[in-house]
Amino acid sequence: MADPLKIGIAGLGTVGASTIRLLDRRANALAASCGRGVTVTAVSARSRTRDRGLPMERFRWFDDPIALARDPGIDVFVELMGGEEGAAHEAVKAALDAGKPVVTANKALLARHGVDLARRAEKAGVALNFEAAVAGGVPIIKTLREALIGNNIDRVYGILNGTCNYILTKMEAEGLSFDACLKEAQRLGYAEADPTFDIGGFDTAHKLALLTSLAFGTQVNAEAIHVEGIERITTEDLLAADELGYRVKLLGVATRSEAGVEQRVHPTMVPKSTPIAQVDGVTNAVAIDADAVPELTLVGPGAGGEATASAVVGDIADIARGQAGAPFGRKTGDLEPLPAAAMQAHKGGYYVRLSVADRPGAAAGIATRMAERGISLESIVQKHRGGKVYGGDDPSKVAGAVPVILITYATTEADIRGAVDAMVSDGYIVETPQLIRIERE
Amino acid sequence: MADPLKIGIAGLGTVGASTIRLLDRRANALAASCGRGVTVTAVSARSRTRDRGLPMERFRWFDDPIALARDPGIDVFVELMGGEEGAAHEAVKAALDAGKPVVTANKALLARHGVDLARRAEKAGVALNFEAAVAGGVPIIKTLREALIGNNIDRVYGILNGTCNYILTKMEAEGLSFDACLKEAQRLGYAEADPTFDIGGFDTAHKLALLTSLAFGTQVNAEAIHVEGIERITTEDLLAADELGYRVKLLGVATRSEAGVEQRVHPTMVPKSTPIAQVDGVTNAVAIDADAVPELTLVGPGAGGEATASAVVGDIADIARGQAGAPFGRKTGDLEPLPAAAMQAHKGGYYVRLSVADRPGAAAGIATRMAERGISLESIVQKHRGGKVYGGDDPSKVAGAVPVILITYATTEADIRGAVDAMVSDGYIVETPQLIRIERE
Repeated sequence: MADPLKIGIAGLGTVGASTIRLLDRRANALAASCGRGVTVTAVSARSRTRDRGLPMERFRWFDDPIALARDPGIDVFVELMGGEEGAAHEAVKAALDAGKPVVTANKALLARHGVDLARRAEKAGVALNFEAAVAGGVPIIKTLREALIGNNIDRVYGILNGTCNYILTKMEAEGLSFDACLKEAQRLGYAEADPTFDIGGFDTAHKLALLTSLAFGTQVNAEAIHVEGIERITTEDLLAADELGYRVKLLGVATRSEAGVEQRVHPTMVPKSTPIAQVDGVTNAVAIDADAVPELTLVGPGAGGEATASAVVGDIADIARGQAGAPFGRKTGDLEPLPAAAMQAHKGGYYVRLSVADRPGAAAGIATRMAERGISLESIVQKHRGGKVYGGDDPSKVAGAVPVILITYATTEADIRGAVDAMVSDGYIVETPQLIRIERE
Repeated sequence: MADPLKIGIAGLGTVGASTIRLLDRRANALAASCGRGVTVTAVSARSRTRDRGLPMERFRWFDDPIALARDPGIDVFVELMGGEEGAAHEAVKAALDAGKPVVTANKALLARHGVDLARRAEKAGVALNFEAAVAGGVPIIKTLREALIGNNIDRVYGILNGTCNYILTKMEAEGLSFDACLKEAQRLGYAEADPTFDIGGFDTAHKLALLTSLAFGTQVNAEAIHVEGIERITTEDLLAADELGYRVKLLGVATRSEAGVEQRVHPTMVPKSTPIAQVDGVTNAVAIDADAVPELTLVGPGAGGEATASAVVGDIADIARGQAGAPFGRKTGDLEPLPAAAMQAHKGGYYVRLSVADRPGAAAGIATRMAERGISLESIVQKHRGGKVYGGDDPSKVAGAVPVILITYATTEADIRGAVDAMVSDGYIVETPQLIRIERE
């Protein structure tokens, strides 16, 4: 049997500590699977003295993760510090430039510097693995990079952020407001004190950028993603979705068509019958439409120390077995520049919730604005006339207003936005309209 | 770039022809991913003249698949003939013994000869890949063999046969009998003229045997599997399941406990809320309970030429990249003999449907027999007294009988069988009792 593979880990938070524990627990199985042992020999973290529930004296300690990354005593550098710049970035570059394979869970780093880092890995002929960066314990990177290589992929989409899915699930199940559910998520540790990164859709966008590259063979381009968060979703929207046969999920969606590659993150109505609609709480799910495998869905834990560590260990094992596929599935020179499709050209159905002034001509005015843009309606629901409007952003404005919900057939983003803007200009609409895109199977 | 990898394919049915088409369609992506081209150079099939919608003159033709397997002009042998003995078996052995990696979709062959073939692959230092053998386009083999290596796995279970799932889904949705739905499945090409292999659970058992080995690091042992088919499921069972919050699926289930490894294939009641309960039609699904990844579910097309060919192409690409992990995740010498747990020791809840003679003392007699064995009941449903009994196997016997449905808390197979046998001996039961095991999350 070959010498054990010597691992250096930078970052000993929940994921780092869990990685050490899994490597211990599965030492025999790893050796049997990889034909060589895997052993952590050196670590780096912010605090040397913090109690991690692990005997630390068996590891060489580095105050500086960059020094660890370059250390000749390690064979693989595992980056679990996080952050798209600074120490994590420098350390990963240092490891690759020193010819060491890298495993990282850092989606922000890869979303920003993925192609450059892949180029460095390629130059050194080493692996840059990042299964843990997307959907935690769900092996979506390996599936796209290896298993589905026989397929042209048309679409990849998923629930990639457990915080958002937890909040939406709880709002729906208990009829509570967004703010109340966010507070509960924070109390349970599912949301950060500053939750913007999760609820604003930015975390999902970073993950989507990586999936897009792998699915379509394009350069990672997170800048091109249209991002909306879940802050404006109300319980009224969730109730209406339920009545109409949908559920609302924050999705990251990437599609390829003649218009180019569309990447978007936003609250989305999905038909209840789809596997993705049935994913609740902090669970993640990714669905792939491929030409030979028409719909493949992977569902599992998207976060948590152990689930994420499972992905890290899988990546380490691939390196121990000698696997070193290209980080984004092909040489960086073969990755095409992303032909970004304009969001205004997006085609699909829309849910539109309007607070309409309760006066003559309003309904006709709305219908006219839709017709002008050639938008057909699949359903119109007008609720409790003159009653209470749930979730309005300014209750003082909506006294006497009538909530109207429209579901459109496929139209374009430009047309629906144009029609709704015209209605607002006409003065019929007394609240900021709510638009939610519909994603069909 | 290295020389193209030369592929020989034996078996040109739907999957074989689709494999050739996918390799053509994705030639550039494959070369980019693998660092070398992949090209089919030789084929073998029963009929040389059959029109497969493909130009065949570019391939060298072999009447004898074993000669193809040994041919020095090919680098990889792809076996898509099927059959657990005969030509497929001989050809795969010949290829491995000649030092050629093998890709196969043949679950029957692997369920019977898996360990021997893995040993030959190991001796030659080549790959034996079989992603296509289980759940078609769903990458469950790669997930167990590589992605989840950091986990101890406690259970793997799934819907592995599209024919059975189609029939059960249709019976449930349309209230049609098993026989009617089987005929429809045959008409649509989802079931064979002789459907025994599918509906009897044997196909599921072959696939389960492979998953068990990969999940638990044990030798493949299909002989140890307890197998029941779906032939005795009635619409009454499906209706009762629905009312009680369950759906009925033919599952393959493998669990590991102190008692050993339990492998079983049978109709199973699963709570409606589980992802696996929501899988309809010919779709397959596999769920894995692992210690770091508590529940991971993969859902996708389990059959069909293109979906299965996608798995074959993924396996070929892994070989082209130089990956050659052990077929069952570790060296054959490290695979433990399967410590088979006795089916009588199985613990779980049961659904019991009885046709009870409508006479004094029957209910007390049944309750006594359950109590004697220490079996607690979660629910008891007694339906339309004296009415028609659906799904009875002998209508003449059940006039005046009362259908009674019991759901038990966890008990053992030995106890529930003992209790039901005693009831039958007591003379209260007028039809063969129906027992369906319950699988909880």
